[in-house]
Amino acid sequence: MTPQPLCRGFKTAGVVAGLKKNGKPDLALIFSEVPATVAGVFTRNKVQAAPVRYDRERIQSGRCQAVIVNSGNANCCTGPKGIEHAARMAQITAARLGIDKDLVLVASTGVIGEPLPIEKIDAAAPELVKSLQPDGVFRFAEAIMTTDTVPKIVFKEGRINDKPFTILGVAKGAGMIHPDMATMLSFICTDVEISADRLQNALNSAVRHTFNRITIDGDTSTNDTALILANGLSGVHLSTSEELQHFQPLLDDVCLELAKMLVKDGEGATKLVEIRVKGARSAQDAHRIANTIAGSNLVKTAFFGEDANWGRILGAAGRADVPIDPDKIDLFFNDVQMVKAGMGCGKSVEAEATRVLKTPEFTVTVDLHLGSESESVFTCDFSLDYVRINADYRS
Amino acid sequence: MTPQPLCRGFKTAGVVAGLKKNGKPDLALIFSEVPATVAGVFTRNKVQAAPVRYDRERIQSGRCQAVIVNSGNANCCTGPKGIEHAARMAQITAARLGIDKDLVLVASTGVIGEPLPIEKIDAAAPELVKSLQPDGVFRFAEAIMTTDTVPKIVFKEGRINDKPFTILGVAKGAGMIHPDMATMLSFICTDVEISADRLQNALNSAVRHTFNRITIDGDTSTNDTALILANGLSGVHLSTSEELQHFQPLLDDVCLELAKMLVKDGEGATKLVEIRVKGARSAQDAHRIANTIAGSNLVKTAFFGEDANWGRILGAAGRADVPIDPDKIDLFFNDVQMVKAGMGCGKSVEAEATRVLKTPEFTVTVDLHLGSESESVFTCDFSLDYVRINADYRS
Repeated sequence: MTPQPLCRGFKTAGVVAGLKKNGKPDLALIFSEVPATVAGVFTRNKVQAAPVRYDRERIQSGRCQAVIVNSGNANCCTGPKGIEHAARMAQITAARLGIDKDLVLVASTGVIGEPLPIEKIDAAAPELVKSLQPDGVFRFAEAIMTTDTVPKIVFKEGRINDKPFTILGVAKGAGMIHPDMATMLSFICTDVEISADRLQNALNSAVRHTFNRITIDGDTSTNDTALILANGLSGVHLSTSEELQHFQPLLDDVCLELAKMLVKDGEGATKLVEIRVKGARSAQDAHRIANTIAGSNLVKTAFFGEDANWGRILGAAGRADVPIDPDKIDLFFNDVQMVKAGMGCGKSVEAEATRVLKTPEFTVTVDLHLGSESESVFTCDFSLDYVRINADYRS
Repeated sequence: MTPQPLCRGFKTAGVVAGLKKNGKPDLALIFSEVPATVAGVFTRNKVQAAPVRYDRERIQSGRCQAVIVNSGNANCCTGPKGIEHAARMAQITAARLGIDKDLVLVASTGVIGEPLPIEKIDAAAPELVKSLQPDGVFRFAEAIMTTDTVPKIVFKEGRINDKPFTILGVAKGAGMIHPDMATMLSFICTDVEISADRLQNALNSAVRHTFNRITIDGDTSTNDTALILANGLSGVHLSTSEELQHFQPLLDDVCLELAKMLVKDGEGATKLVEIRVKGARSAQDAHRIANTIAGSNLVKTAFFGEDANWGRILGAAGRADVPIDPDKIDLFFNDVQMVKAGMGCGKSVEAEATRVLKTPEFTVTVDLHLGSESESVFTCDFSLDYVRINADYRS
């Protein structure tokens, strides 16, 4: 019996190619039975890995049938050879699948600055293609992990005009996670039919409030890539804006859940914290302040220490380069008010606040009392393990 | 026999007032026999501690005879009461010294958001004033420390028109250290005579390339203050620009040495690293890139791990929002070239690079090959102890 596909017409696989020193799966493939419409979002870092440079050109066609991804090596800062290797990855895959090489996109993640061992990818390609399965998503998700501790998969079903469609999203993150670009690798498959322009708009919109609203360590990656493939095999056409309105929230949900998974599994992270800034004059102000708080090492180490040190949160808010009135600010850990009009609410609320900080997920709300706009950024705590992991990454 | 003053006419003291939980000295005083000219630089954080707000007003007069400083409590986010407490600190000091309260400035450093126990400062004031000594600078430096592990003092002598003058600088830092303002507390005494305007210009110029070129953890403090007092008792008048040119380099040196001491003693720091960006189109570009590299957690944890992970340095350079050509970049650890034209120099240089990274002080040079401007920023590594210290700061 053929296993039921999660998303019609898509097959996925993950195998061991020997790129990772620890012998874990490190080569992954998505394949659609028919050429799909594709859209993508890439890192804004000026230093861009070869696969990012490669995909940016190829994706102009709006068509894609397969994506090959390796972990263990970022193929970044590898010069003209790196671009050759990215092209070669696409060629190898296309040849094995019997499709046009221009229908293959590539992605890499791992150590920067070492030449990609393309011969290992070449050698593993036959097995990779052979192990494609309609339900192979777990092996795919596993093979794109670097310091991630769990595979990240989100699956959603929707209905439009009584016809079912699905969205399947996979992501990897862990380090170098910061707003201002799809800060990780993410691959989303859907069986709706949609034009490339509309698909790009839908992805941009989803990314803006999900992948671009998370931070783990303030570093953006040279390899960040989010791709979405829509193969149309559900028979659901998205052409009217009303039809799109049924699709967008589901895509937003997929991205938001993946984004939160990324933060939760951030390097060394033990807590997922929503930093919510409200009462701002503009959404941009709210976002900038939330982002500065979410990125503060002092705030994040206090979260790790389960220390309700709200002074650091106000200190971070104050350096966001946004006009604020410190004497108006209220601050809450979940529902526990710690600060009223810029002043601490005293020792009596500390015990309650500490109870909140001891939970694995909570919200910090900063109310500026200057307007009506609000924005959230998701962050994690900053732990001893973050330093341990990153002091030692290449060895 | 009266001890020889380090800087003519200045006396300093440090005592235990009981503000710090660990019972260490926490109240400090500088006193000049005669009213001195004063200049100051303060935090640009929007959330400003009460003593900063207080000093900003008082310093307009250009005159100051005493500075009282407490550690253990930042008197920040303490509302109108905090401002009252800052004023009260000045009053108490003025009364004990028998001078006008408008000649007293105040500074605080420590935990944010707890009311300043002014009664403890009141109670310790008599002993503080009584223990003023011409050579009391070590006790002063000790009493302004928070998580600093060593007191930071720099003393320099100069000559102008054959007359000797001196500059004595003291600082505390350790956490919340980041460019864009005199990111710590620093107090500088000098016995030259100079107008308030000239003194302010000299301080601004010195701070720009010293205290504003260091980073420990990316957070700026609500209490950052650098004050310089010039009491004129050396008989050296600085009025011509030639005379000023003899003074400025010495002041620059005092600030640079203090700045480096701050980084070296950064919370958990084990290494002092100069990030030098050269070949930039503008000094601003060079500074921005150096600053982004110097602030990257991934770069700093790699320094801690003594891992020559130059890919992270290029990754950080790429997100500085400055146009660069990654394929032109050269990168060195001291004299060891790791990257040539954007590509790694291979495994053969790794051993040499690791030798550099194992030393306590080294320079990372990034050559952009785009122009002729260069800038440096000083940073430290990011260690397990940083997290330990900050997870646990208030307990």
